[in-house]
Amino acid sequence: MNTLTDIQTAAEILRGVAHVTPVLTSRTLNQCAGATVFLKCENFQRVGAFKFRGAYHAIATLPSPQQAGPIVTISSGNHAQGVALACQLRGLAAHIVMTKPINPLKRQAVMDYRATIHEVADGEQAERTLRDLQEQLNGVYIHAFNNPRVIAGQGTAMLELLSVVPDLDVVLAPVGGGGLLSGTCIAAHGVNPSIAVYACEPIGALDAVHSVRENRIVPMTTPRTIAEGLRTSLGDVTLPILRNHLAGFFPVEEKEIVEAMRFAFERLKIVVEPSGAVALAPLLRCEETLIGKRVGVIITGGNVDLSSFFATLS
Amino acid sequence: MNTLTDIQTAAEILRGVAHVTPVLTSRTLNQCAGATVFLKCENFQRVGAFKFRGAYHAIATLPSPQQAGPIVTISSGNHAQGVALACQLRGLAAHIVMTKPINPLKRQAVMDYRATIHEVADGEQAERTLRDLQEQLNGVYIHAFNNPRVIAGQGTAMLELLSVVPDLDVVLAPVGGGGLLSGTCIAAHGVNPSIAVYACEPIGALDAVHSVRENRIVPMTTPRTIAEGLRTSLGDVTLPILRNHLAGFFPVEEKEIVEAMRFAFERLKIVVEPSGAVALAPLLRCEETLIGKRVGVIITGGNVDLSSFFATLS
Repeated sequence: MNTLTDIQTAAEILRGVAHVTPVLTSRTLNQCAGATVFLKCENFQRVGAFKFRGAYHAIATLPSPQQAGPIVTISSGNHAQGVALACQLRGLAAHIVMTKPINPLKRQAVMDYRATIHEVADGEQAERTLRDLQEQLNGVYIHAFNNPRVIAGQGTAMLELLSVVPDLDVVLAPVGGGGLLSGTCIAAHGVNPSIAVYACEPIGALDAVHSVRENRIVPMTTPRTIAEGLRTSLGDVTLPILRNHLAGFFPVEEKEIVEAMRFAFERLKIVVEPSGAVALAPLLRCEETLIGKRVGVIITGGNVDLSSFFATLS
Repeated sequence: MNTLTDIQTAAEILRGVAHVTPVLTSRTLNQCAGATVFLKCENFQRVGAFKFRGAYHAIATLPSPQQAGPIVTISSGNHAQGVALACQLRGLAAHIVMTKPINPLKRQAVMDYRATIHEVADGEQAERTLRDLQEQLNGVYIHAFNNPRVIAGQGTAMLELLSVVPDLDVVLAPVGGGGLLSGTCIAAHGVNPSIAVYACEPIGALDAVHSVRENRIVPMTTPRTIAEGLRTSLGDVTLPILRNHLAGFFPVEEKEIVEAMRFAFERLKIVVEPSGAVALAPLLRCEETLIGKRVGVIITGGNVDLSSFFATLS
C-alpha cells in the first residue's frame, strides 16, 4: 500500500522531468460554484495529461534486472503517450497494444516518441498480444493504473497543488481505473487527513461507486460516455485505497460534461478533454456540499482534437 | 512620457485587483521555434484580456474633480469590458459607445458589469455620440490606448513576466493602437535596455510598420484581418514610444494567425483570440532572429466565442 513518503519520493524522481503545472483560479467559476476553486491544470502536463507522471515514475524505478526487456502496455489513450515518452526519455524500447479504432493524433504522438504500436481488434486480443509480448520479448508490463508506482506518480499532482494551496477543504477528481484518484487520496490525507476527497464519475460508466459500496470490482462492461479515459473498471490495488479514503461520489451526466468543456473554453480559456471536465461539473451545478468550501480540482488532461471538440460541442 | 516608475506604480494599484497571470512554457513550442519561449497568458486576465489592466489603472487614478461625471469610451471589444468592470469595481457609471454589429457575448458581458451601451452605426457617429456624452453628462473619456495611464497599466503585464523570467533576449507583442506594446517597451527597457522588443502585425492591417518608419500616423482605413483588436491606427502618444523602443516588426499572414490559434488549442491547450495569436506566429514559422533566444510573448486575450472559433478554424 502506498504512503505519502512514496509520493514524495516520486516527486523527487519527477523533478525537472514532469512539468510543475500551474494552478488556475477564476472569479467567474467561484461565483458560479459559490466556492473558492483551485484548478490543478494537468492539461498543461507533458503529453497533455497527468498520465506522464505515473508512467515515468513506474519506468524510472524498475528494479534493474527487469530492464532487460522492453516496456509493454495496453492503452489507446493518454497512458500510451505517457509510456512512450517515458521510455524515450529513459532510452528503453516501448511496445503499446492499442485497440482499434485508434485516434490518428494519438497514434501519431506515440509514433513520434518512437514506440512500436500493436493494433488489435478487441480487448481479448489485446490481452493475448500483451502476454505474447511479455513472453517473447521479456517485456515488462506497466499497467495504466493498477500499479503502486504508477499511483505514486499520479499522486504528485495533488502534492504540488497542496504546496500552493495547503488549506483545501475538498478535492474533486474523476475516476476511471482509479489510479489518479488513489494517488490523490493518499497525497491529500498524508498532508491533511481532514480533506474530503470526492470521486466524479460519468453516469454512463457508473461502476466505481458500486464497486466501492459493494467492496468488489463491479466491472464496467458497457460504458456509454464521451469521457474515454473513464470507461475502465477499478483494479484490486485501487479499490481498497478508494474505500479507505473517499468521502463520496458525484455522478455526472453527459450533458454536464459537455457544458463543463464549453465553460472551460469560453470562461476559463483552457482546453479540457471530456474526462477532465467531469470533475468540473459538480461545481457548475452548485453541488451543495461544495458551497463555501475551498475546493481543489484535478483537471486531468486536454487531449481532444479539434474535430471531435467541434462535434461534441455543436 | 511614461517611465518604468509609472508602470511600477500602476502595478501597486492593480495589486489584488488584476490577476497575476501565469507564465506558461511548452517543450513542443520550444522545439518548433528553436527558442526558449515564455508565454505571459493574459487570456487568463479578468475580462479575458490585458485591457482590464489599463482601464482599471486609468480610472482608479483619475484626479478626483474629474470623477464627478461618468466614464465614457468607444470600444466594441475588450476595452469595453475592461472599462465596464473597472467602473463597477470603483462604483462609477460607465457609458460605452459600441459600433454595430456588436458581438452578442461582448454586449452581454458589458451589460453584466452594469455599463450603459450606446449603439451606433459607424465610426463617425461613434465620435459624435462620445462628444455628446462628454458634454451632456460631463463624461470623462478613457481612450483605449492613446492615454499614458492606460499605457502604464498595460505595461504591468511585462513587469510581471520579467519578475518571473528576468533574462529575456526578445519580447513579442501584437500591435493595434500600440497601448500594450508601448507599455511593454517601457517596462522591458526600464528593467533591461538590451531586450529586443518586436511588434507583430497582421499583413491585412499593416499600418504601424509604416507609421513608425515614416514617423507619422499612417491611418488604417481598410483593415482586412480576423484580428479585430489590431485594426486600429497608432495614436500620437504611442507612435513616439514605439519609434524610440522597437527593434523591428514581424508581419503576419492571416493563415498564420489561424494556424497559431490551432497550435494554441491542440498543443498548448489554451484558448487564444486572433489578436493574441499574432504574436505566436513568428515563432511557429521559426523566424531566424528568434532562434536560440529566450523569448517572452504576451498572449493578449482569449475572447473568442465557440461559433466564430469553429468557423475560423474549420
